[in-house]
Amino acid sequence: MRHTKVVTLEEAILKSGLKDGMTISFHHHFRGGDKVVNLVVAKLAEMGFKNLHLAASSLSDVHAPLIDHIKSGVITKISTSGLRGELANEISHGLMKEPVVFRSHGGRGSAIASGELHIDVAFLGASSCDELGNASGCPRSENAKSICGSLGYALPDAKYADHVVVLTDDLVAYPNVPKSISACDVESVVVVDSVGDSSKISSGAIRDSKNPRDILLAKQAAKVIINSGYFKEGFSIQTGTGGASLAAVKYIRESMIEKGIHASFALGGITAHMVKLHEEGLIGRLIDVQSFDKVAAESIAKDQLHQEVSAVEYASADHVGSAVHALDIVILSALEVDVDFNVNVLVGSDGIIRGAIGGHPDTAEDSALSIIVCPLLRGRIPCVVPKVTTLITPGKGVDVVVTEYGIAVNPARPEIAERLKAAGLKVVDIHDLAAKARSIIGEPDALPFGDKVVGIVMDRHGKVLDEIHNIVD
Amino acid sequence: MRHTKVVTLEEAILKSGLKDGMTISFHHHFRGGDKVVNLVVAKLAEMGFKNLHLAASSLSDVHAPLIDHIKSGVITKISTSGLRGELANEISHGLMKEPVVFRSHGGRGSAIASGELHIDVAFLGASSCDELGNASGCPRSENAKSICGSLGYALPDAKYADHVVVLTDDLVAYPNVPKSISACDVESVVVVDSVGDSSKISSGAIRDSKNPRDILLAKQAAKVIINSGYFKEGFSIQTGTGGASLAAVKYIRESMIEKGIHASFALGGITAHMVKLHEEGLIGRLIDVQSFDKVAAESIAKDQLHQEVSAVEYASADHVGSAVHALDIVILSALEVDVDFNVNVLVGSDGIIRGAIGGHPDTAEDSALSIIVCPLLRGRIPCVVPKVTTLITPGKGVDVVVTEYGIAVNPARPEIAERLKAAGLKVVDIHDLAAKARSIIGEPDALPFGDKVVGIVMDRHGKVLDEIHNIVD
Repeated sequence: MRHTKVVTLEEAILKSGLKDGMTISFHHHFRGGDKVVNLVVAKLAEMGFKNLHLAASSLSDVHAPLIDHIKSGVITKISTSGLRGELANEISHGLMKEPVVFRSHGGRGSAIASGELHIDVAFLGASSCDELGNASGCPRSENAKSICGSLGYALPDAKYADHVVVLTDDLVAYPNVPKSISACDVESVVVVDSVGDSSKISSGAIRDSKNPRDILLAKQAAKVIINSGYFKEGFSIQTGTGGASLAAVKYIRESMIEKGIHASFALGGITAHMVKLHEEGLIGRLIDVQSFDKVAAESIAKDQLHQEVSAVEYASADHVGSAVHALDIVILSALEVDVDFNVNVLVGSDGIIRGAIGGHPDTAEDSALSIIVCPLLRGRIPCVVPKVTTLITPGKGVDVVVTEYGIAVNPARPEIAERLKAAGLKVVDIHDLAAKARSIIGEPDALPFGDKVVGIVMDRHGKVLDEIHNIVD
Repeated sequence: MRHTKVVTLEEAILKSGLKDGMTISFHHHFRGGDKVVNLVVAKLAEMGFKNLHLAASSLSDVHAPLIDHIKSGVITKISTSGLRGELANEISHGLMKEPVVFRSHGGRGSAIASGELHIDVAFLGASSCDELGNASGCPRSENAKSICGSLGYALPDAKYADHVVVLTDDLVAYPNVPKSISACDVESVVVVDSVGDSSKISSGAIRDSKNPRDILLAKQAAKVIINSGYFKEGFSIQTGTGGASLAAVKYIRESMIEKGIHASFALGGITAHMVKLHEEGLIGRLIDVQSFDKVAAESIAKDQLHQEVSAVEYASADHVGSAVHALDIVILSALEVDVDFNVNVLVGSDGIIRGAIGGHPDTAEDSALSIIVCPLLRGRIPCVVPKVTTLITPGKGVDVVVTEYGIAVNPARPEIAERLKAAGLKVVDIHDLAAKARSIIGEPDALPFGDKVVGIVMDRHGKVLDEIHNIVD
């Protein structure tokens, strides 16, 4: 090659013109296996940077080393979809001066596209990249060390950031085809030992449940779908993370085969379950913003009908062309649902941040039918409550709540309640579910929140939806 | 679908906010078969628009109806890569008040990306599109009426235009996968009887020659490549339009097989010849900004290693990530080459515009080895001349000129001259070629140019390179 963009990480940072106070960004396609955030921020700390704004598509347990970088003033602001583990715990207790800004995946895409979230330098991990910067989440050589499939959450960063650095653990011969990130959007390429541990891309929120209650809930959710009026030839579907919502796909499959019904597409985080249905001819297209496991990542590498989409194309409220606008059915999980159908997927009932917004409010609002699957109780913690601890998805977008004690339907959708009742499903008032939970657990103590705002929840349209206060032990 | 962008052409125009004096754009992937430009401009005329700037990626014989729209003041400015036929003839004679602005394909991409060429409303033909605007040059249903393959020249328009209208002759079920143009970039979708006659996508400059002189030149060009020092494992190649340069591929193929040499990629306008070599395993990847025939268009529809790229990704001088930066060898044609190795591919020796800049200056400048293949004479017209009628590709980017009277090598590349001589090829001084042409034809009369500037040639870096004056009969 007569031209190359391959440099060391330090050279890439120097070349980027990064200055104290600027915004750096990352994607979370390796989820719990991500190695890019810690590597880059450690280097930035070593180089003496301060007051950086870290704008990740999400953060998880693995990013606990950020705690020290926050304490030392390297990172003073965070924007993310979620937080988990020790980092989340510390932030919930007031680690940072500035509140963390939480956005949905679609909301982050919109904010980047509109310029509201301006990224100075994006550091984007890729499983293959050539010397000019054509990058992919798919492996392309015998030396490949990782795979994450779709780079959907990285694509707005690649398109809109002022400066883009691709980090890769497999530098391949030009041209890396097909590309996800275009060389024309990339300034530097950095070769590293590992961008991520692919065995952990199905970690975090994603788990394939064998829990009998999850299976019961999944079967109920499948019955809701089948009898909702939206289960017909050409329907489309998305399942969120969470054991029950993932498992529901299995039971829908049986009914699709039995009734000869085919889905036009499945959307969102794509799993092995969805790939199986696609390969069986039951789902026409897979629209993949994030490959939720290795089977999905391997499928997107080879199957033209398995399409990578950016976070904007997936779920932007500002773009009528985003896929959520064409979505019929979404199955989502929840930490809490309240009697107004508002949902919290971010803050635990102990007041500690332990989740991620993800595409929850995006899909709930724009889909024709949104179904929340959650148990009435998790241990001694009620999941159907009078008022959610933190508002993430406004109730107006939530149609059905499936619990093991019955199915609540939003009063705004009486036709759905009628259909479910006609099918013999146990439709209950959501107030009765909340009362049932309370009758079992009793009145919980008020959470010991302090006066400090540790998090701000933005809605997908760019407005402040809620605040998260510090928790006092 | 609960959302649709499908409207009539008139509704799409009204919705676009188009006003007199604004810039509209079009792509030319259907080449001589294009039906979109005439259809849209006729509608704009009917609706009473005036003073529009028509910024097409190229125009050809089929666009003669624009003459009337220029006379009536609907179109008062044109930007394009080329002009042919009666439209070109009239413009050469002074039809327009404002000169036509000519840009290379890479130059147009750069100008759109930088904002120098701002597009208000793009009208982009597609062989398939869904109701939200995901569009492709590939057919996707049994009702498909057209195919053009790559939409590379339309992609900068889709990305940067203020408003995008997709016209399609096959509205397909959502989601149209894989997409070339993203629904997130599209405001309206218009269904029309036909966006183009696919049988004519290999019309215009592209022809598969049986002319014995072309075959001789092609064989000579192949020998130049093979002995240039750039013909080795992993080399990359592009062939321009023109019978001899297209035919050269056949002869290179034989040598690749004989010597066990494989190309990493072929770039640019992709032809059936290139597809054949790719399918034989002789070329690893096809990087396709424009499918030059139906075989290429059908290949890009099904082959993941046949990658569509935008005009920016293909040939932008502003982006080191554009593919021309990785190009080893390009074979190009010429209307005229002069003794300083300057090339003209736009204006005939009669002073009449009859061609297109295409990717000529882009690939010549950035490739490691550029080879111009042209006969010494075409009938009574000399092709090697003291000074080109119009400067399109500056000589500093041109390395070798192959004629039937010998091969001239740019003095800036003495090492190539040495290699060709060592291989027994007839290397001559380009002044001798010009003198030979003149000795056969005699001194031509000066062209009867007038004082009016009818065209301005921009170089790929955005500077004025030359002016074209009106011709006086």
